[in-house]
Amino acid sequence: MAAGAWGERLSGLQAVLLDISGVLVDGDHRRVRPIPGAPRALRLLKQSGLKLRFCTNESQTPLSAFVAMLRHLGFDVSESEVTAPVPAVCHLLEERQLRPHLLVHDAVRPEFDRIDRTNPNCVVIADAGEGFSYQQVNEAFRVLMSLENPVLLSLGKGRFYKGMDGLQLDVGPFMKALEYACDIHAEVVGKPTPGFFQSALRELGVEAGQTLMIGDDIVSDVGGAQRCGMRALQVRTGKYRPCDERRSDVKADGYVDNLAEAADLLLRHLPRA
Amino acid sequence: MAAGAWGERLSGLQAVLLDISGVLVDGDHRRVRPIPGAPRALRLLKQSGLKLRFCTNESQTPLSAFVAMLRHLGFDVSESEVTAPVPAVCHLLEERQLRPHLLVHDAVRPEFDRIDRTNPNCVVIADAGEGFSYQQVNEAFRVLMSLENPVLLSLGKGRFYKGMDGLQLDVGPFMKALEYACDIHAEVVGKPTPGFFQSALRELGVEAGQTLMIGDDIVSDVGGAQRCGMRALQVRTGKYRPCDERRSDVKADGYVDNLAEAADLLLRHLPRA
Repeated sequence: MAAGAWGERLSGLQAVLLDISGVLVDGDHRRVRPIPGAPRALRLLKQSGLKLRFCTNESQTPLSAFVAMLRHLGFDVSESEVTAPVPAVCHLLEERQLRPHLLVHDAVRPEFDRIDRTNPNCVVIADAGEGFSYQQVNEAFRVLMSLENPVLLSLGKGRFYKGMDGLQLDVGPFMKALEYACDIHAEVVGKPTPGFFQSALRELGVEAGQTLMIGDDIVSDVGGAQRCGMRALQVRTGKYRPCDERRSDVKADGYVDNLAEAADLLLRHLPRA
Repeated sequence: MAAGAWGERLSGLQAVLLDISGVLVDGDHRRVRPIPGAPRALRLLKQSGLKLRFCTNESQTPLSAFVAMLRHLGFDVSESEVTAPVPAVCHLLEERQLRPHLLVHDAVRPEFDRIDRTNPNCVVIADAGEGFSYQQVNEAFRVLMSLENPVLLSLGKGRFYKGMDGLQLDVGPFMKALEYACDIHAEVVGKPTPGFFQSALRELGVEAGQTLMIGDDIVSDVGGAQRCGMRALQVRTGKYRPCDERRSDVKADGYVDNLAEAADLLLRHLPRA
């Protein structure tokens, strides 16, 4: 793409929302590695004058541990800069007086300690990884079938992500399994739900039209952000697959090899940079 | 329902197709129990002069062991009387030269011994029970994602069945999980696929219009059989739930408490009985 075209596409930007898994790092709760060039790219973006916030569907690790791990890998991130689904769903559970049965990774269970979980009247499903055993999925299914008005809250609906040794099923397929088994529709808390992006924009104090989302997921990141009025770049790292660029239903505003290329473009083409 | 109404609804019947799980027995591969009155009802039906065949989606136990278990419980059944999805999918795999990766219960694996499974070009998913671990579902997902034209063959698409201690997820939810993860559609081998019912009718040498399906699944048994031109009764045993009778999309030709009541009705109202 010609340099001029990028300048036009990036005009008027004041803020960037950054996905984390697949953009900064690859891996799962056991082991992650930084994507080459990403720590430096993040530093450059933070120095650019653009407002910046992280917007992740990560639900396999407690947010504090996730951020500590990112810092250990050289990323300048703090908890208060991250919009993530576990805090969002806890807020929603309290607001609606829902008592969840949890189908989540063991490590994330303590995040729900302050929530009443006696006599459940809903199920919360997150990226449970190996916790998606037949027995545990079946238990969640039985809870839902026992409810007169079954409520299923899903932390994102991603299809898969890139783990250390290959692609890994994310929460979405197991959400679909429970939807089909119980003949219900889940409520998604996380990307690509508009309310989730909007809460990140509120934290930044910017409008959607001034904001660029950078992510590796053509549906949750790119499609979701665009439906909220943001622009969106897809990085060719993480779960990216070449067929993403040939989809007729979602087109990113641009495709870049990685976050380093995205940062370079932003720094070259923005008046503020 | 008045006696006359039943006589009309059952008029012209020459054959009965019988579901097994939820009609003859409840349970899973570990333990099953006969549904009260079912062994005697089967004997009466066999003596009635009606042609009879079994049509099951059972895929968690090898057919020979399944039939032996039924005989042990007092049911007069032989292997040659059963239309089941494992033999059907083996036939299809050979015909289309497909080499499956198997996501099936360990006990059923030997049924595929004669099928070439090197360098898989499709996935066969059956009711794997506890075999639906994260790791095994993920492995099937990775095989599908590695194929240029991913083929997923699912032995039935049942939502759940009634196990010994409560409802159990069947193959359908895991089929849906893989469909969503890979953005594909599975081919179903088993009920409610018309070809599966038609092969049972061919074995019996009868037309759909002369045949009654008796099952506990409002979708796979009742809806599937009716779409083929058969009549269908739903029994209030197995996975039956009262809400099945309130569905607007599928209505059985009649609802009976159990197979014993179905046999009684057939014997009272059929000219041949």
